[in-house]
Amino acid sequence: MTSHSPLPIPDSRLFSIPTRIYWEDTDAGGVVYHAQYLAFLERARTEWLRARGLGQEVLRHQHDLVFAVRSMTLDFLRPARLDDLLRVTAEVRECRHASVVFAQSIERGDQTLLTAEVKVAVLAAATFRPRRLPETLYQAFRTLERPTDRQEDREPRNDG
Amino acid sequence: MTSHSPLPIPDSRLFSIPTRIYWEDTDAGGVVYHAQYLAFLERARTEWLRARGLGQEVLRHQHDLVFAVRSMTLDFLRPARLDDLLRVTAEVRECRHASVVFAQSIERGDQTLLTAEVKVAVLAAATFRPRRLPETLYQAFRTLERPTDRQEDREPRNDG
Amino acid sequence: MTSHSPLPIPDSRLFSIPTRIYWEDTDAGGVVYHAQYLAFLERARTEWLRARGLGQEVLRHQHDLVFAVRSMTLDFLRPARLDDLLRVTAEVRECRHASVVFAQSIERGDQTLLTAEVKVAVLAAATFRPRRLPETLYQAFRTLERPTDRQEDREPRNDG
Amino acid sequence: MTSHSPLPIPDSRLFSIPTRIYWEDTDAGGVVYHAQYLAFLERARTEWLRARGLGQEVLRHQHDLVFAVRSMTLDFLRPARLDDLLRVTAEVRECRHASVVFAQSIERGDQTLLTAEVKVAVLAAATFRPRRLPETLYQAFRTLERPTDRQEDREPRNDG
Repeated sequence: MTSHSPLPIPDSRLFSIPTRIYWEDTDAGGVVYHAQYLAFLERARTEWLRARGLGQEVLRHQHDLVFAVRSMTLDFLRPARLDDLLRVTAEVRECRHASVVFAQSIERGDQTLLTAEVKVAVLAAATFRPRRLPETLYQAFRTLERPTDRQEDREPRNDG
Repeated sequence: MTSHSPLPIPDSRLFSIPTRIYWEDTDAGGVVYHAQYLAFLERARTEWLRARGLGQEVLRHQHDLVFAVRSMTLDFLRPARLDDLLRVTAEVRECRHASVVFAQSIERGDQTLLTAEVKVAVLAAATFRPRRLPETLYQAFRTLERPTDRQEDREPRNDG
Repeated sequence: MTSHSPLPIPDSRLFSIPTRIYWEDTDAGGVVYHAQYLAFLERARTEWLRARGLGQEVLRHQHDLVFAVRSMTLDFLRPARLDDLLRVTAEVRECRHASVVFAQSIERGDQTLLTAEVKVAVLAAATFRPRRLPETLYQAFRTLERPTDRQEDREPRNDG
Repeated sequence: MTSHSPLPIPDSRLFSIPTRIYWEDTDAGGVVYHAQYLAFLERARTEWLRARGLGQEVLRHQHDLVFAVRSMTLDFLRPARLDDLLRVTAEVRECRHASVVFAQSIERGDQTLLTAEVKVAVLAAATFRPRRLPETLYQAFRTLERPTDRQEDREPRNDG
């Protein structure tokens, strides 16, 4: 982390990117192939990080870390279709020392098409072994947590 | 459904297919891209159906139905790599009138790489609206249910 | 085609879109998986059409047509990598009554990563059979042709 | 190369693998998405190599080499559809010291759906820079060349 500290942006906790649906994303059912939504979710997490100065290159080379999906729950509520312009959101639900839980959604206009909770584990870029977040990143992510009503269920927490 | 009833195979409740990992499945982390496992899971569900005489064409044209993923929970335990030969399993955890829950796993040798629970909704092929399974299919799927220890938690059930 | 004629934009014959590289696009070689460039090329052709008022919905429902790739030649000159921001170009090399040839490239800064010539056939949306372009579209596309030095090799032309 | 020389199999110059079409391969046109055929072609080249004892691991770790697609020409003749069982062929058209040209096709029953000529370059696995094939591999590939009528057009050859 350099001294010009890339992470604050405290007001913009709710983050989203636009995503257009192309032929590549659809299947013969005429809708978006279900696995493709996971790629959209990852694009949003990646851009969420980039908006905080944490592009993949910075993460790998300055911090020796990559994130790997450890678990997900997904609810597919409505299908997206060719040419749709979607909004993919990402926010930190909970940050621990060795993992981050994101709450995400995919929306079209005022309709929610998909909701997801995605837990990513922190790995060392060089070895792909679990490691802890550097303290500066941990503290920065903690300030970005956007707890929900379920917050109280999760106390007390243990890390990992 | 014809009179020679395609569905029994009662002894082979645990079903799996082999899947080889190619370059297309991997990402720059050197492992399989996480969304790609969802495609492997679908291949196994499709082959599970085909082994019971229920290829996609039969489902769509004889039964006017398609299955669409409604929700999933996924645990990514270990990564798969280029050239790996995986085994993808599928079994019915629970069959209701308008949805089927599959328990699935992806394995390499004696290691489990991923476990998943996948709920698929029954849709009319023509309209993509929810519908009920034809009674013959419902009864056949019910005989294939492979309950787990959690079975008792799910009684009593209401359909849908 | 409505009377407010969406197609001219005669000065902007060279068209491009930006495309960011995400994990989903890469393979275990650390670079973009070669087949993925074809999806980028299609995104650019789709946006080229949209910029002229010809979104997929307009094409299918107002004009009863879809485009299908009939042939391609591709030169892979340099690899793209994670996080790269690419520029994907599309221009009409030649328009015939039942097909359109696009010249395309993928660029990163001042480097050309890939060049392609892509011939798309005109199909009826309802039947997927070959058909001719509506005359208004044909004339509009002709005005957008951007011939190269090789132009003289192609005369005289016969359609199709 | 070990002394039990994996490469001969001189009679089986025409090589093919079966490939099933799943939902993941299709698009909203109801047919296989065009870029997906490139993945099928690569599966066949990979299995062609594996059948000769040259799995990716052997290539990378024993021979320090990977193949990268350098150019392709593709003709899309007929579409494949969900559930189709295809046959993907691969044969060596021409082997040079630093590149190999494959002729490939994708077939369904007695119909040819796609033909392709694919030139792959030989790269050092460690650096991704061009290198020459080891002499034993070069000689082995040469014996597998399956020239066509166009062979005479290509003489004399210079390597690369």
